[in-house]
Amino acid sequence: MNLPDLPALAEPGLAARVQHALDQKTKPLAALGRIEALALQLALIQGLERPALQEPQLVVFAADHGLSRRGVSAYPREVTPQMVANMLAGGAAVSVLARQQSLALTIADCGVDAPLAAGAVDLRIAAGTVDTSTGPAMSMAQAEQAVGNGMALVERLPGNALLLGEMGIGNTSSASLMMARLTGLPLADCIGRGTGLDDAGLAHKSAVLAQALAANATAQTPLQIGAALGGFEILTMAGSVIAAAAGRRVIVVDGFITTAAVALAQALRPGVLDACVFAHRSAEGPHARWLQHLHVRPLLDLDLRLGEGSGAALAWPLLTAACALLADMASFESAGVSNRE
Amino acid sequence: MNLPDLPALAEPGLAARVQHALDQKTKPLAALGRIEALALQLALIQGLERPALQEPQLVVFAADHGLSRRGVSAYPREVTPQMVANMLAGGAAVSVLARQQSLALTIADCGVDAPLAAGAVDLRIAAGTVDTSTGPAMSMAQAEQAVGNGMALVERLPGNALLLGEMGIGNTSSASLMMARLTGLPLADCIGRGTGLDDAGLAHKSAVLAQALAANATAQTPLQIGAALGGFEILTMAGSVIAAAAGRRVIVVDGFITTAAVALAQALRPGVLDACVFAHRSAEGPHARWLQHLHVRPLLDLDLRLGEGSGAALAWPLLTAACALLADMASFESAGVSNRE
Repeated sequence: MNLPDLPALAEPGLAARVQHALDQKTKPLAALGRIEALALQLALIQGLERPALQEPQLVVFAADHGLSRRGVSAYPREVTPQMVANMLAGGAAVSVLARQQSLALTIADCGVDAPLAAGAVDLRIAAGTVDTSTGPAMSMAQAEQAVGNGMALVERLPGNALLLGEMGIGNTSSASLMMARLTGLPLADCIGRGTGLDDAGLAHKSAVLAQALAANATAQTPLQIGAALGGFEILTMAGSVIAAAAGRRVIVVDGFITTAAVALAQALRPGVLDACVFAHRSAEGPHARWLQHLHVRPLLDLDLRLGEGSGAALAWPLLTAACALLADMASFESAGVSNRE
Repeated sequence: MNLPDLPALAEPGLAARVQHALDQKTKPLAALGRIEALALQLALIQGLERPALQEPQLVVFAADHGLSRRGVSAYPREVTPQMVANMLAGGAAVSVLARQQSLALTIADCGVDAPLAAGAVDLRIAAGTVDTSTGPAMSMAQAEQAVGNGMALVERLPGNALLLGEMGIGNTSSASLMMARLTGLPLADCIGRGTGLDDAGLAHKSAVLAQALAANATAQTPLQIGAALGGFEILTMAGSVIAAAAGRRVIVVDGFITTAAVALAQALRPGVLDACVFAHRSAEGPHARWLQHLHVRPLLDLDLRLGEGSGAALAWPLLTAACALLADMASFESAGVSNRE
């Protein structure tokens, strides 16, 4: 598989110059806290002293999972195409938030178990993965095709920012399996209640996932792990993440499933994480642990656990604010304000 | 002093109807976390099933403090009028954020030690308070006048949302003193580094504030405490908070100093807290403790410690998102999506 190179690191003086600009703004040193760190990160991603965000693209990657036939979700499998239709009709949370924040919304069908919905982008690999509790969720050829689809999608989208969203009943199971394999943490630490399982449901999900992990123990490379345990939407998203990082786009990561895609992308092409802004800490139990493992700190902590890209959309105004503050605030000198004594 | 009554509590069925509407939206139950709680709070403040925010007003209340002559701040006293000018010229953080979020920005001069700046609203009581380390910061008549000014200001502003901001070198000292008296916590737990004091500066500030607390031990009623330890901007803001709550406006609280104003307003007119959305947990040390004491949880936690209303402006999009989600998301029924099994 042919993955693009990531851009060279920003030249060494850039970070110092941006930090100096932030320090000269009319505010106590570091008083804008993590917004200043965000402004610096955006500058380094774009390689510019004054980063600017243009034509942000929120992409919802949708697909079905063989595991959803095994009762691992509180919702039935047909909800995937129903929610795709709801997103396209404007009634889903992500639709409302994208409209409100002027984010272009694309629904990419990566393998939903239903005919292609009008208005969705056709990146279909198959009508859902196979049941990974007995073997790989997809073939290696399908995995490569998905990653390639994701790269090609980003290359034809305008703008310089990609917000990640997803839809797929059963995909917290897939993300949990990938977390266990990619981090080496015990499976039990990687499983949450998804869309709302009760204790019995959680116990059942844990048993099925243990079976799936055992059935795919031979997967070793990142792409093999993705093919064995992932979903079409997750691998397509991983491809989009790699292409976005290669193209100096800012990537806004949503919750648990998008973190799985980013972690896979990072395993495939180390360095993509530098281009990622983590929007929020999900209420899906293992997400906080995964963020820690990746050494990243999200912007919001609002007990969200919806997915769809809803958290990415909610965090978006913080990114535009960071750019505006860096570009437009006066300095002590330009405003004639006395600095500290 | 004549304070307006707060509106009657929302009729008992409203909360249940709004919660039902949220629960029927196409998302797992409670999956939008604190955004759902926020939508419910906004509905209860407005007394409407579909709250809507109109013509939001960000008011920066500015004044000088006698204590700033005692070396309690890292910045010199002249920074107050300089920053007022910077805000009016559009170069301050709050100016940039207000523009970006389409918030109307008003700078209310409540007693800056400089001539009234062109473009500021004249609510001046005097050219700064007197040094509270030897007695009350202001007379009771001045305190009443400030509260009255704040009420009158809100009554002539349009819209249904008030975002609180402030500017005044020395005002974290005033807020610390008010926190100690209003909460009963030890003074040491109420003092932070403000705009960036070092250890020696912090020790000096603590000594001066202990002196001020002792010099004003006879203050008993909330208004006496405000007059003794507050500032003109804090008392004016408290008046605005009361008028806003009385008028069913949504109040967005910024950091440590605006929390002082809200706590005073709550002491003067219990119940105003219900109309308050706390935007963020400030990095100013004692703020987290004060929020706990008030039993409130802020939306953001971004290590901000700038004041000006910058945190309120950064949180604002979460309020508009909450309203949009409640108004515009489809229900399971309207979207034809299967609910959980």
